[in-house]
Amino acid sequence: MSENPHASPVEPVDPAAGTPEQAAVVDLLGLLALGELTGFARLAADSDAAPTLTARAALGRHACREFGHYELLAERLRALGVEAAAAMAPFEPVLARFHERTLPATWAERLVKAHVGDSIATDFYREVAAYVDDDTRDLVLQVLDRGSAEDAGSVEGFLVSAIREAIATDPASSGRLALYGRRLVGEALAQAQQAVVERDALATLLVGGVPGRSADLAEVGRMFTRMTEAHTQRLANLGLAS
Amino acid sequence: MSENPHASPVEPVDPAAGTPEQAAVVDLLGLLALGELTGFARLAADSDAAPTLTARAALGRHACREFGHYELLAERLRALGVEAAAAMAPFEPVLARFHERTLPATWAERLVKAHVGDSIATDFYREVAAYVDDDTRDLVLQVLDRGSAEDAGSVEGFLVSAIREAIATDPASSGRLALYGRRLVGEALAQAQQAVVERDALATLLVGGVPGRSADLAEVGRMFTRMTEAHTQRLANLGLAS
Repeated sequence: MSENPHASPVEPVDPAAGTPEQAAVVDLLGLLALGELTGFARLAADSDAAPTLTARAALGRHACREFGHYELLAERLRALGVEAAAAMAPFEPVLARFHERTLPATWAERLVKAHVGDSIATDFYREVAAYVDDDTRDLVLQVLDRGSAEDAGSVEGFLVSAIREAIATDPASSGRLALYGRRLVGEALAQAQQAVVERDALATLLVGGVPGRSADLAEVGRMFTRMTEAHTQRLANLGLAS
Repeated sequence: MSENPHASPVEPVDPAAGTPEQAAVVDLLGLLALGELTGFARLAADSDAAPTLTARAALGRHACREFGHYELLAERLRALGVEAAAAMAPFEPVLARFHERTLPATWAERLVKAHVGDSIATDFYREVAAYVDDDTRDLVLQVLDRGSAEDAGSVEGFLVSAIREAIATDPASSGRLALYGRRLVGEALAQAQQAVVERDALATLLVGGVPGRSADLAEVGRMFTRMTEAHTQRLANLGLAS
């Protein structure tokens, strides 16, 4: 991979020759970048399936915001001397498996998937921010800043009110939606764990090997527990007991 | 439709009470906005179907650029006192018919459809810019500024080189692709004519009724001829004789 002389003034990293910490950051950014690129594609497809032109525009806006996050992550990877495509490639099977196993069957399920997917991404970003270098943390926190569920202009605000509306229109669907929401978080955590198992560098970052920065195995377990609890609370807020 | 006190300082128009020219501009902006929103969805789907992560990111970038054009057009409509969804609604059947009748069967056909669709949109913008008020013309020209086929960073540059690559990989496919390209332009012009027939206001703009600004019927005929010629030339440049 050739070095770009016009890249931002960051020490370029040869991924093959980098330290375990550098390789871990590349892995992490690659996973997050592919997550954003995939999120963009899912939200764009949701936009195309939306029942009204207003919802179509709102979901399109959110899709492009995710794409903007992808661009930020890809730029950071380039500054580290790594092409985004190369950093993302190892995670394609994991993301593809998640999406194949959680195909939404209805408009309400699409909304729940977008909401849960986005929330889990947010939680994951917040958790991993603790384990990375300062520049990467700044970027992660910038991507994280995506508005709250109470802000109607944010993706979460839009999704939460659209889900509430779908449940109000068809209260009988809430049990099935809650089940689907639980399956989503189960698959997401299973695939995240799979990614950690398959990628040594990522595991190193999260379970040890980088003094002062890494989490131990018990801490990773607590992280997944916190994410599950947050998810349960969010579904309950929507009137979906999981 | 309530007036937004924070909108830009443009005289708001009540579409029901507006002049024929104002109604025509709302129609035109609605058609262009829906074209961009639809283009966004198609390019995002192409991105999702792309054979490499690099192409996936490139097509995602172009999809979001189209969405940015949609936002500009929607903002202009809001300044005129009209919600984008209301202005776009009349054109949903026309756009849906075009896409149903031209579903691409292969990756190369997806690329040709994106290229032809984008080119026809560009030609149409350039042609109609002559018939609208100054503010609308500025906006149309701004949206038009989408780079040239020779610029690899532009959507056209990306599509042209990807189509050339697809033809080089499978030269036998060029005849079928040329046929598909011809069908695309035929359907696009047929649906554009249908839109003009169905929408009195748009017809007024293009064939007369607004002194000093409108085109006559013969001029509309010449406009479609110019667009067909430009399309034939573009396909020939790609090695696709149509």
